[in-house]
Amino acid sequence: MFNNITNEKIYQQVINQIQNMILEGKLKNGDKLMSERELSQKMGVSRTSIREALRVLETMGIIESRQGEGNFICNKIETSLIQPLSMMFTLNNGDYKDIIELRRMIELEAVKLAAIRGTDEELEELKMISQRLTKKDEIYNKGEIDKEIHYKITCMSKNFLIKSLYTISLNLLENFIINSRQKIVEFYHEEETLNLQHKKICEAIIDRNPESAYKYMKKVI
Amino acid sequence: MFNNITNEKIYQQVINQIQNMILEGKLKNGDKLMSERELSQKMGVSRTSIREALRVLETMGIIESRQGEGNFICNKIETSLIQPLSMMFTLNNGDYKDIIELRRMIELEAVKLAAIRGTDEELEELKMISQRLTKKDEIYNKGEIDKEIHYKITCMSKNFLIKSLYTISLNLLENFIINSRQKIVEFYHEEETLNLQHKKICEAIIDRNPESAYKYMKKVI
Repeated sequence: MFNNITNEKIYQQVINQIQNMILEGKLKNGDKLMSERELSQKMGVSRTSIREALRVLETMGIIESRQGEGNFICNKIETSLIQPLSMMFTLNNGDYKDIIELRRMIELEAVKLAAIRGTDEELEELKMISQRLTKKDEIYNKGEIDKEIHYKITCMSKNFLIKSLYTISLNLLENFIINSRQKIVEFYHEEETLNLQHKKICEAIIDRNPESAYKYMKKVI
Repeated sequence: MFNNITNEKIYQQVINQIQNMILEGKLKNGDKLMSERELSQKMGVSRTSIREALRVLETMGIIESRQGEGNFICNKIETSLIQPLSMMFTLNNGDYKDIIELRRMIELEAVKLAAIRGTDEELEELKMISQRLTKKDEIYNKGEIDKEIHYKITCMSKNFLIKSLYTISLNLLENFIINSRQKIVEFYHEEETLNLQHKKICEAIIDRNPESAYKYMKKVI
């Protein structure tokens, strides 16, 4: 039997063309796409197919449609991946312990990289964030500072995928376990101990000591 | 100003309803969806909006349309995530070293978990795969056996997210670097040494020695 070479759906072929232009660097973040009418003429397909393709790319977080202005290449894929990943997880009867394990793995790697790759400026910023953590002052929400420290560390890893996966795993965790910090505080530590541990992580990074940073991170996640 | 509460596009609302049914466990892998006509009646929206939503879900790998049979919930999300992730990576000017680092992190964790969690049956299977690696016989493609070992190890980690991310990172790697094994062989090792290292990884797992398995894995990735 011969294969039908036009078996792939039209809207899918439109998506592929746009995807390839992105992968080849011909379309960049912020670039404006041609209008639906122009795309339809250039590719020789119906406007319905173009619209279907654009809907898909919009949901994927690859294009953004601004009313009255047109469609632009954007970069919200990180956020848009959270829903499909949550579904993939549910459809596979995933265990929430899998997410905790993933987050642990990412953070233990990130903290070592942060101690090696963080710029002097970032170390200074980390110092300032961590000082807020042990202040007795009630105006500071310790849970928020805690999050800020973990996020800062993943940025300092200078690995875009590690940073993205951290964000994704945190969101998955929040989808499946509400208020995980509260649970950690309740079950494993006194809040003050937890704050001190975070301070020690920061100090180890500032001392550029990856092994010590790793050791303290292991205690809080 | 008031917010327009119906601001979210119709097709997006349809997607959300189906997504929520999946997340709540009301729709499971293999379930058949209602027909486009029925969905359109139940949700009180046009068939165009239903079709747009189904297109998106199909591209995401959440539903599969079988000709003459209808739409079914499926689970190809893992595969469908590779394209958006590749684009996210390109749009962010990602460095291919980031992918290598990610893969390294995943495999070093997986190999420890495999030594702890692998079933006796899986250890036996791993033994058989690894024996093929050092056979002089030309009929075995060593590159394929190499891949098989790494994949088996990530399955033995019993963490679904680790397994999925391994598959995704491997695909990203292949999108950005063609034939990475060939490069590893050329630059770092004699092929025979590489095969022996893999055998040692397998032996350490079979001995249920996570630290030793970790040590040998570190040498080949």
